[in-house]
Amino acid sequence: MLESFNSYLELEGGELYLEDVSLYELAKTFGTPLYVYSLSYVLDNLRAYKEAFINALICYAVKANPNISLISSLAKEGAGADVVSGGELICALKAGIEPSKIVFAGVGKSEEEIALAVENQILLINAESEEEILKIDSVAKSLNKVQNVAIRVNPDVDPKTHPYIATGLQKSKFGIDIKAIPEIFENSKSLKGIKLAGLHCHIGSQILSVSPFSEALNKVLELYHYLLNKGFELNYLDIGGGLGIKYRPEETAPTPGDLSKELLPALESFKGQLILEPGRSIVGNAGILLTKVLYRKQKSGKHFTVVDAGMNDLIRPSIYSAYHHIVPVRPRNGRKILTSVVGPVCESGDFLALDRELEDLEQGSYLAVLSAGAYGFSMASNYNIRPRPAEVIVHKGKAILSRKRETIEDIFQKVT
Amino acid sequence: MLESFNSYLELEGGELYLEDVSLYELAKTFGTPLYVYSLSYVLDNLRAYKEAFINALICYAVKANPNISLISSLAKEGAGADVVSGGELICALKAGIEPSKIVFAGVGKSEEEIALAVENQILLINAESEEEILKIDSVAKSLNKVQNVAIRVNPDVDPKTHPYIATGLQKSKFGIDIKAIPEIFENSKSLKGIKLAGLHCHIGSQILSVSPFSEALNKVLELYHYLLNKGFELNYLDIGGGLGIKYRPEETAPTPGDLSKELLPALESFKGQLILEPGRSIVGNAGILLTKVLYRKQKSGKHFTVVDAGMNDLIRPSIYSAYHHIVPVRPRNGRKILTSVVGPVCESGDFLALDRELEDLEQGSYLAVLSAGAYGFSMASNYNIRPRPAEVIVHKGKAILSRKRETIEDIFQKVT
Repeated sequence: MLESFNSYLELEGGELYLEDVSLYELAKTFGTPLYVYSLSYVLDNLRAYKEAFINALICYAVKANPNISLISSLAKEGAGADVVSGGELICALKAGIEPSKIVFAGVGKSEEEIALAVENQILLINAESEEEILKIDSVAKSLNKVQNVAIRVNPDVDPKTHPYIATGLQKSKFGIDIKAIPEIFENSKSLKGIKLAGLHCHIGSQILSVSPFSEALNKVLELYHYLLNKGFELNYLDIGGGLGIKYRPEETAPTPGDLSKELLPALESFKGQLILEPGRSIVGNAGILLTKVLYRKQKSGKHFTVVDAGMNDLIRPSIYSAYHHIVPVRPRNGRKILTSVVGPVCESGDFLALDRELEDLEQGSYLAVLSAGAYGFSMASNYNIRPRPAEVIVHKGKAILSRKRETIEDIFQKVT
Repeated sequence: MLESFNSYLELEGGELYLEDVSLYELAKTFGTPLYVYSLSYVLDNLRAYKEAFINALICYAVKANPNISLISSLAKEGAGADVVSGGELICALKAGIEPSKIVFAGVGKSEEEIALAVENQILLINAESEEEILKIDSVAKSLNKVQNVAIRVNPDVDPKTHPYIATGLQKSKFGIDIKAIPEIFENSKSLKGIKLAGLHCHIGSQILSVSPFSEALNKVLELYHYLLNKGFELNYLDIGGGLGIKYRPEETAPTPGDLSKELLPALESFKGQLILEPGRSIVGNAGILLTKVLYRKQKSGKHFTVVDAGMNDLIRPSIYSAYHHIVPVRPRNGRKILTSVVGPVCESGDFLALDRELEDLEQGSYLAVLSAGAYGFSMASNYNIRPRPAEVIVHKGKAILSRKRETIEDIFQKVT
């Protein structure tokens, strides 16, 4: 069952290994809470996308996990980057991704962020409002550049995911209504700082069925052909990311191959550069959060397992009511109990699992929180003045500390 | 109306001032997003608690806002600290709070954190499980110390607040069932590293009615007298924090005076040291988050105001569906529109206000997000690789930069 989460995750000799590295030894060596990522799994996923969408540019969505070593490895295998801030743009550049492979989305790009993108001549800025288009134009003109821009289309498609990560509904803040776009293309003809060169669409995240993708694509392609017929030159079609991953044992996530099977027939009519922006589906199940059992307690018939990872380390259960599968690092096939796995943060919202069937564990045991590679460390905070975890990358039996554990001193260093 | 949020917040000459400092000038000087705190308002609140509960030790709950300058000012006025982690303990000590005025709660204290508390001989560790009591005992013995411990009582009281910040319900992870406590006192007689010296109780946060506090107190006092009769010496009663603040214009929050009026009659029978742990009610309405309007957009009849503060800066609307009142820094009494104030983060969950009536503002205008002094910066993250805001303290017409704005370089400095 574990292999269905990550093909490099194995139970051997009574303990868990990720890419042939003992998770118990990692917890002992680097302490907990600790994020561990399997590099081979990440690269396998990128390859699956490249094979499923030949000739497409695969722009890894940095927001899912901005670990520079991982992105650097993805860059070496030809990946581009989908960034949503100046910080992510700098991260992608630091990781060695060429500007000609970087796309920049997001509803609230500041003037400074736009200037950074234009100066670096990134492939595309995906614009989300008319005011933003004008801003990009004025920034580019002031820098004597012409910036390629795609318009983010809001296709009004329900991706059937958590409302917070559904981004293609009409009521969401993202993109521009399809109906309004032809006029924007007309009006933009006079703008000398930009070239409207494509369409962008991203309907949300953690989508477990491929049909919303094809529903959105059909709407975008209809617009594409309409604009072509009007004489506009459109070289780029960025169809976003959002493919879901397996979080629950009973779930099956669609593969990049499933997605291409669904989308490629419709895409035959498109002759330009296709772009995809997978994030979670590249790194999500590559990652595990290791945590230690601090205390067990019984209260009014309810059992709690108190661990050393809190909502500041992994906020998904709290903010999205997300399920993460949790397994002991050294299972003993012992008695199972119903327990809530909770963290040390002073909120009832600080939990990793509620009323979960789990082995009755000793104090000091380690737990592996699966599917923690995406929106884990990237959303971590210092809430309750808790330093953020370290990050380790495992690859073919070797472990490398990729990011040191934060210290209390780090947290206070900007105090004046 | 503004003064009912913060008595130092004024509209003068068409712009907002906090403690006689122009918020417009602060936004221009320090950039946005920017947290601004009024020190006089913070100190007024502490004084209100001290006057309402004479002889009580007021332990400021650091988790609400761990700004060291603010805590240092509170320390000078006699405040103690309620901490929930080793990081917060270090913060309180750095701010100049004496160990004899520090109490330490939380369900998941690590061995290292307990050792830090014992070494510093803090006033009380508020223990939340039997296993934790044993851990404190063994740590203290190994350090040749005796640590004062209070037991956190879970009184099973509904504080009628957001489920994530209700902590005194039977089903929550916090505290120990009242019924179980006498036996724990009996069993702990033989423990040489600790002295069970009190009871602790904290039923939740943002509580707008005083009656749940008195319901909880009555249960705790009943236990207190039972234990006294059994011959135990109990010197400390820590009745927690949790007093709510005004977030909505139509809300009225109880004052420390209202709380004392409700609780003091019952407390007459208690002869030891009373402790309170206010956090939000000290700093919540002292703080404002300043943000800039980047873009306005209309989509399918819905209006969006895109600002430069996101859920990484202030997560409360997203995680607790919290309401924050928002006012223009330079109101023009112009046409009002219905708009959603959203941030630049790539999630539909990234919003500050949904469908709010607000003045139709120009690009570049500043907005003041009120009631942002508690659980604002303390929960901020680098999600989307966004640097965290700067913090400014205003006091009697002067502004001091208390924490520098984070840089992208700061974010990457722990990468190896």
